[in-house]
Amino acid sequence: MTAADSRREHDLLGDRDVPADAYWGVHTLRATENFPITGMPISVYPHLVEALAAVKEAAALANEELGLLDPAKAAAITEACREIRAGKLLDQFVVDVVQGGAGTSTNMNANEVVANRALELLGHEKGEYSHLHPNEDVNLGQSTNDVYPTAVRIATIFAVRGLLDAMAVLQDAFARKAVEFRDVLKMGRTQLQDAVPMTLGQEFSTYAVMLDEDRLRLAEAVSLIHEINLGATAIGTGLNAAPGYAEAARRHLTAITGLPLVTAANLVEATQDCGAFVQMSGVLKRIAVKLSKTCNDLRLLSSGPRAGFGEINLPPVQAGSSIMPGKVNPVIPEVVNQVAFEVIGNDVTITMAAEAGQLQLNAFEPIILHSLSESITHLSAACVTLAERCVAGITANTEVLRAAVENSIGLVTALNPYIGYTAATAIAKEALATGRGVAELVLEKGLLPAQTLTDLLRPEVVAGTAAWAVSVAAAAETTHGQPRAAAAGNAG
Amino acid sequence: MTAADSRREHDLLGDRDVPADAYWGVHTLRATENFPITGMPISVYPHLVEALAAVKEAAALANEELGLLDPAKAAAITEACREIRAGKLLDQFVVDVVQGGAGTSTNMNANEVVANRALELLGHEKGEYSHLHPNEDVNLGQSTNDVYPTAVRIATIFAVRGLLDAMAVLQDAFARKAVEFRDVLKMGRTQLQDAVPMTLGQEFSTYAVMLDEDRLRLAEAVSLIHEINLGATAIGTGLNAAPGYAEAARRHLTAITGLPLVTAANLVEATQDCGAFVQMSGVLKRIAVKLSKTCNDLRLLSSGPRAGFGEINLPPVQAGSSIMPGKVNPVIPEVVNQVAFEVIGNDVTITMAAEAGQLQLNAFEPIILHSLSESITHLSAACVTLAERCVAGITANTEVLRAAVENSIGLVTALNPYIGYTAATAIAKEALATGRGVAELVLEKGLLPAQTLTDLLRPEVVAGTAAWAVSVAAAAETTHGQPRAAAAGNAG
Amino acid sequence: MTAADSRREHDLLGDRDVPADAYWGVHTLRATENFPITGMPISVYPHLVEALAAVKEAAALANEELGLLDPAKAAAITEACREIRAGKLLDQFVVDVVQGGAGTSTNMNANEVVANRALELLGHEKGEYSHLHPNEDVNLGQSTNDVYPTAVRIATIFAVRGLLDAMAVLQDAFARKAVEFRDVLKMGRTQLQDAVPMTLGQEFSTYAVMLDEDRLRLAEAVSLIHEINLGATAIGTGLNAAPGYAEAARRHLTAITGLPLVTAANLVEATQDCGAFVQMSGVLKRIAVKLSKTCNDLRLLSSGPRAGFGEINLPPVQAGSSIMPGKVNPVIPEVVNQVAFEVIGNDVTITMAAEAGQLQLNAFEPIILHSLSESITHLSAACVTLAERCVAGITANTEVLRAAVENSIGLVTALNPYIGYTAATAIAKEALATGRGVAELVLEKGLLPAQTLTDLLRPEVVAGTAAWAVSVAAAAETTHGQPRAAAAGNAG
Amino acid sequence: MTAADSRREHDLLGDRDVPADAYWGVHTLRATENFPITGMPISVYPHLVEALAAVKEAAALANEELGLLDPAKAAAITEACREIRAGKLLDQFVVDVVQGGAGTSTNMNANEVVANRALELLGHEKGEYSHLHPNEDVNLGQSTNDVYPTAVRIATIFAVRGLLDAMAVLQDAFARKAVEFRDVLKMGRTQLQDAVPMTLGQEFSTYAVMLDEDRLRLAEAVSLIHEINLGATAIGTGLNAAPGYAEAARRHLTAITGLPLVTAANLVEATQDCGAFVQMSGVLKRIAVKLSKTCNDLRLLSSGPRAGFGEINLPPVQAGSSIMPGKVNPVIPEVVNQVAFEVIGNDVTITMAAEAGQLQLNAFEPIILHSLSESITHLSAACVTLAERCVAGITANTEVLRAAVENSIGLVTALNPYIGYTAATAIAKEALATGRGVAELVLEKGLLPAQTLTDLLRPEVVAGTAAWAVSVAAAAETTHGQPRAAAAGNAG
Repeated sequence: MTAADSRREHDLLGDRDVPADAYWGVHTLRATENFPITGMPISVYPHLVEALAAVKEAAALANEELGLLDPAKAAAITEACREIRAGKLLDQFVVDVVQGGAGTSTNMNANEVVANRALELLGHEKGEYSHLHPNEDVNLGQSTNDVYPTAVRIATIFAVRGLLDAMAVLQDAFARKAVEFRDVLKMGRTQLQDAVPMTLGQEFSTYAVMLDEDRLRLAEAVSLIHEINLGATAIGTGLNAAPGYAEAARRHLTAITGLPLVTAANLVEATQDCGAFVQMSGVLKRIAVKLSKTCNDLRLLSSGPRAGFGEINLPPVQAGSSIMPGKVNPVIPEVVNQVAFEVIGNDVTITMAAEAGQLQLNAFEPIILHSLSESITHLSAACVTLAERCVAGITANTEVLRAAVENSIGLVTALNPYIGYTAATAIAKEALATGRGVAELVLEKGLLPAQTLTDLLRPEVVAGTAAWAVSVAAAAETTHGQPRAAAAGNAG
Repeated sequence: MTAADSRREHDLLGDRDVPADAYWGVHTLRATENFPITGMPISVYPHLVEALAAVKEAAALANEELGLLDPAKAAAITEACREIRAGKLLDQFVVDVVQGGAGTSTNMNANEVVANRALELLGHEKGEYSHLHPNEDVNLGQSTNDVYPTAVRIATIFAVRGLLDAMAVLQDAFARKAVEFRDVLKMGRTQLQDAVPMTLGQEFSTYAVMLDEDRLRLAEAVSLIHEINLGATAIGTGLNAAPGYAEAARRHLTAITGLPLVTAANLVEATQDCGAFVQMSGVLKRIAVKLSKTCNDLRLLSSGPRAGFGEINLPPVQAGSSIMPGKVNPVIPEVVNQVAFEVIGNDVTITMAAEAGQLQLNAFEPIILHSLSESITHLSAACVTLAERCVAGITANTEVLRAAVENSIGLVTALNPYIGYTAATAIAKEALATGRGVAELVLEKGLLPAQTLTDLLRPEVVAGTAAWAVSVAAAAETTHGQPRAAAAGNAG
Repeated sequence: MTAADSRREHDLLGDRDVPADAYWGVHTLRATENFPITGMPISVYPHLVEALAAVKEAAALANEELGLLDPAKAAAITEACREIRAGKLLDQFVVDVVQGGAGTSTNMNANEVVANRALELLGHEKGEYSHLHPNEDVNLGQSTNDVYPTAVRIATIFAVRGLLDAMAVLQDAFARKAVEFRDVLKMGRTQLQDAVPMTLGQEFSTYAVMLDEDRLRLAEAVSLIHEINLGATAIGTGLNAAPGYAEAARRHLTAITGLPLVTAANLVEATQDCGAFVQMSGVLKRIAVKLSKTCNDLRLLSSGPRAGFGEINLPPVQAGSSIMPGKVNPVIPEVVNQVAFEVIGNDVTITMAAEAGQLQLNAFEPIILHSLSESITHLSAACVTLAERCVAGITANTEVLRAAVENSIGLVTALNPYIGYTAATAIAKEALATGRGVAELVLEKGLLPAQTLTDLLRPEVVAGTAAWAVSVAAAAETTHGQPRAAAAGNAG
Repeated sequence: MTAADSRREHDLLGDRDVPADAYWGVHTLRATENFPITGMPISVYPHLVEALAAVKEAAALANEELGLLDPAKAAAITEACREIRAGKLLDQFVVDVVQGGAGTSTNMNANEVVANRALELLGHEKGEYSHLHPNEDVNLGQSTNDVYPTAVRIATIFAVRGLLDAMAVLQDAFARKAVEFRDVLKMGRTQLQDAVPMTLGQEFSTYAVMLDEDRLRLAEAVSLIHEINLGATAIGTGLNAAPGYAEAARRHLTAITGLPLVTAANLVEATQDCGAFVQMSGVLKRIAVKLSKTCNDLRLLSSGPRAGFGEINLPPVQAGSSIMPGKVNPVIPEVVNQVAFEVIGNDVTITMAAEAGQLQLNAFEPIILHSLSESITHLSAACVTLAERCVAGITANTEVLRAAVENSIGLVTALNPYIGYTAATAIAKEALATGRGVAELVLEKGLLPAQTLTDLLRPEVVAGTAAWAVSVAAAAETTHGQPRAAAAGNAG
């Protein structure tokens, strides 16, 4: 770099040249050299950058209010933070998502970008830190150890909002199908063996109900994350933070973000504890487990077309095979399965990182942030993709489904109360031996009038109760608003 | 077996001889032959046996109430179930804890034991099923698919009570130490590097607060498990269960167990869903993560005696080494770490089992029950052991701790506001270069009056706020009652 | 306890009364009090007890040879160890499988039992340690830190032998079915969609080949475990062990166990390293993954009987349902799936325990031993159970399978080279539109002579090559001997 | 898009416009729409793109050789593949790394890019597939189901080479320190308690030896991946592949890549089996476990500077804290720990994906590829970073280390053979009671001549044997070549 291309900055370890147009400075430069791990800069998580700027803005306003920061400086910092929150300067957040130092490099990157942009707004050159300093002004009264966890929490809350919406879209898609298929009779299966009749609508209703419950659990988990440790400084004792700072900063941060943030009662505990992230990841894993189960079912029910279950058809979204003409594969459920496996693996990563925290700080929050963010954003994409490119276009092979019921041995279970256990067992044996259908045999032997058999196979009778319809309808309603209250629904 | 020693029973697959004195029958016999996996019978989980008996009793009472079961039979079944709930016949629950069949063998084992004991109470011989039948009477209106999940939930609730109590014991032990050590000054550490001063009481308070939060999360998770699917029968449609049965059975089961059970709104969903178990396991994992972190800290703080941190002393509970005279090892925290690793592994097992469920039933609930039970009971034992054999006897090396503060470079951070950043940095440099203590240098240079330094190192000043003391005291209070309300505490 | 019932023993912490008839002593007593975790004593792992006795015997012989141990004492110790290796005194190994202290309590338990039995053999009373001492004589030249890892390795080798045999039994069962079904035509599936024809024999051959490969990998992993650190004493420097001791002890241990043990080149590294256990667990996990996949396939292929794939029938081993007459469930594959989930969870436990080791020793080997032992013994039981109670009795629904091929659209892929891509695509379209079979249409349109179609569907043509048959036969052969050499087989 | 900007392409689902300058076509377009999951295109894995091109080239040459592909077409395809292998057109590989369809979209992306570049080379426009077709020519005789697994294996082999090199760099760095510190005396620790003396060189030698062993294990695991299934086509029966194709393609692929590839003996098994990837991931996890343990040790040994172990100093690479002057943190070991946690989580993801494979194909290989690639590349970066930015600059606090030995109680263990157990125990007690050093007391009491004590503390005596030095030197030597033969080294 020539002098014109660069500026010289100084830190504890000496002097370094930084590109003249970079808003980041020497600390960021060293961090990029120290952590050449993934090649992914923290800008891949815009919510984190937005959250960092919100924290810096709140801190500046609190410091100004307490008379610790010059109003002109505070105004410049505030303006710089607002620009960043509006999406500007995102490309200046360049340190690797996987980094040592408990997030120090991320905090330093933010301090430097805010400071240099604020310097410009004040009419100075980038790097003229005597006018406004990344550490002494932008980071005033703060420590990475309270800024970073607070920003990670806010970023997670923002990201989870997107996931809740995505899950609502998917829940809605399943609920619509539950209604569409409410009169489609089919055999229920346990342990992959034919069991007793049900409706296809009931089957799809379960997926909607599962998602509704999972949204409730996710909403609970995210509520735990609203507790922050801003004002804790290094280890939670609030050393070097002015009296009143923690409360003022929280108040400004709440106003800026619109989130009902609360300051932890025990800041020493809050500074070292990653329990809320472990809980959040556990709920994401729960969601992944059920999404994966649901996709396993969809792939199984659509297996065939000839040598499989063939009960439903997934909409074709791309050619399945170059070598096998006409083959269409369940590629959308397959990609969702894979996201689920990733989320489950990420949960182990987060678990290990949380367990490895020592004494007054967990140094491994960056990998927790990275894994959580990945899980949340990939799950969000998976839910919407599954809803729009698969579930919405699913059709039922109604005749195949009904024939399986009439042909099934499992039908005799439903006839037990009408023809008696002995006759039912005899019919079952004959059906098994001859390969004939139970319905056919029962009618042939005159054990039941045709009308009674017809009545027994009416969907509302098969479904057993009207309850499911109610709960599906309720689930459908919630998709445009908040999740149902826990008291009203399945708590699974 | 001679005729005198055995009785002949019959099932779908043919005749088999069963020991004459066995309360279990042919289905149980086949199951013991089919699943020779762990050698651990289900009787290792008394809560499960108790819960099964409670479900059978509730079902009998419901069936009697609905006129479906002869009152004499109902009375005999009820009496047999009460005996089992009182701990009798436990050795008759012999099928392996790891079994195929979605719990069918466990349910059959219960049906047979209850039936044979009821037969005896009615004056018949064991095996005279024409008078009272395991399936037709004891299992009336039920299916493994609603009985087993319901019993697993009740057993889990019983077991979690024990864990909540054990955690309270441990929380109390930490809270007492937090009070005992409230005036003991020490260096706080971040990233294992000396950071800023704090008190040892604060350090121990975090462990109490963590446990308090974890108890709240556990209480929430167990509340989800109060939702049952009894009355669902095979797949949730309630086929073959009489109208009113589900509600009557739930009512009786609530009365018998004293638990506020609710019936799931969507029984098809509830019958296939293992979400509540995944959530429970996720919370157990969270508890394990924090317990392990806590034990890592205890082992680190007590490292030494000469070449380690040497801040605290764990009470010796056994000789540490045959080869090294006088060596005492942190064996209690070590065993707790290992339980934590086991719980974290069990969470993966439960996750996989839940994900593998297909269509209308999860066939893998037995391994979920087994893993959950193991996690809960081992965590309970670990908490009490840690409290009683370790935490209660911990002592502090007060002088070592205080000397480290006075000698530490980190002390300058606390002096920043008093002597200025420039002077502080100079002192830090000199201390590093000469190996001398910061306090010593500050006094020597007259930068602060001795009294001011003394004041700055008063525990309440170092601790930063009075908040921690309040929260610790609150935590201590809760240990004899319910966990604090979530609103009042740290939500981590 | 009265004086008659007990004897008094002494250790670092003071005096304690031990039951008079107990072969274990005060150290064991304290350990049972300190670790009330699982309730499972180490005697549940007879291989471990046998291995401990072998190590103690080898050490005594080495010490005698080096002139450090009185021949009479050595003879008594040797005799006591031989009794233990023969299965006696197993009930005296009472410390909990999950314990702190890096296995010290297990080693102490062994020292005490050997010493007290040796005292009896020498004509003394139990507890008269002045004649022969648990630590000074039985543990002479040893440390828990070399004895325990060595014993764990030998126990693991013994246990793995059983697993290799069990896998061979299962491999053989699959290989026999591969031969039995070699001419049974069926549709192959990819992504659960009908793909192209194959034979059922090919399908079963894959399970045999997988097991053969897994046995090779297991044999490799167990070979790594033959490296021991006996002679390392406390941390690997061999402090207090006589020159020549390590080599003499290894030589005797090899003779006693028949295992080609080698002493690690770097004992400091070997004493702290758990890599070989992580590797072993990783291979067990691999076996579990494939067993689970295989059982998933078996359950899928046998799904039905009417509304599923219905390709094969698993032998019924117990009644499936009390409520659904005639229902038979795939309970054996289901229990194997659950063992697999357990093994995969155990791998995470072992991983965490290995990662948590610090500096010169891993204190968490007891949970590694416990998890490894559980994985190995449960997998062994699962393999034999699957072979004997399921695979051996599997039958094929040959007509259903063949009809699916003739009816399948996927058949056109096989006709491409004969009737051309254009005609093939047209046939596929017509088959899809009309629901008719491809074979039927091709014959009707005269596109192929009937004989050619017949030829194309001959199993050996469909199977594509003779290679598979060769490899299956080779796999079958190996089941009575050692696994095939890696060079000859699939390396997957 | 205007006509000038785009070209129209056609597939099973209809017509779509593709950007005129895109080398990819309609199949790729649909895939990008179907899988908007991570935003990471497959071009982030250049080794995969290179491997795909190698497979396509080998297939074209094989087809030409067998007379199935026009030489002019073959030449154009070959040239296009060579360009891609040289790094050109990388930006044309745009489908998401996480995708459904078992890799079909990746294969289609490759077919389209190769075809369009080959068309250009033949003088045609992109999209003029009548002259050279992505499926009929580029994919001739292939299926995604053999192309993709083969390419994933080759890509993995390429990536692992980089990891082996990176591990050698790190091993070398540790081995150099082992030599540098060979005379530095220190206390060894077990269970974090002072144990017996050793040298710092021995401690660092263990890290070198661990890496050497891990490189051996990795080399073994990668050797399994050299087995490919090219020629298997859809399910392993080789349907539609010409006789001789598999062998010719393998021969060309070996020549192109320089890798000793072998064709699996049982292609049906090889096409569905992911065992080799599970094994590879298991070994990566083993490496991660030990790297993490090593970094835990480094952080512990460098804890301080005043209130910690303070045995070694890590080189400062960035400022540690804005709030605490002079604080330097172990950021490089911390980032390596986090990579290790990620690798361990990825292993669970891979395990689940492998277990979820059904019947003749595993549809989830894309997530296996993604997770494996991430683990390998991040571990490579972590090893080099750790070597260059941390280990190479580590210094020892020699005097602190030696003082701890002389002051330690553990020293008496070494004196046992010289002053007797009784005297040693008395000294230990006095040292504990008075806080004085063992060496000091022994000299004061005249129990040993000063020279003898000096001799006992000579590094080579403390180290116990010369063996370690030999093995370290051997390890150091291997770093410039291949890993040592297994027979010669520690097998852990």
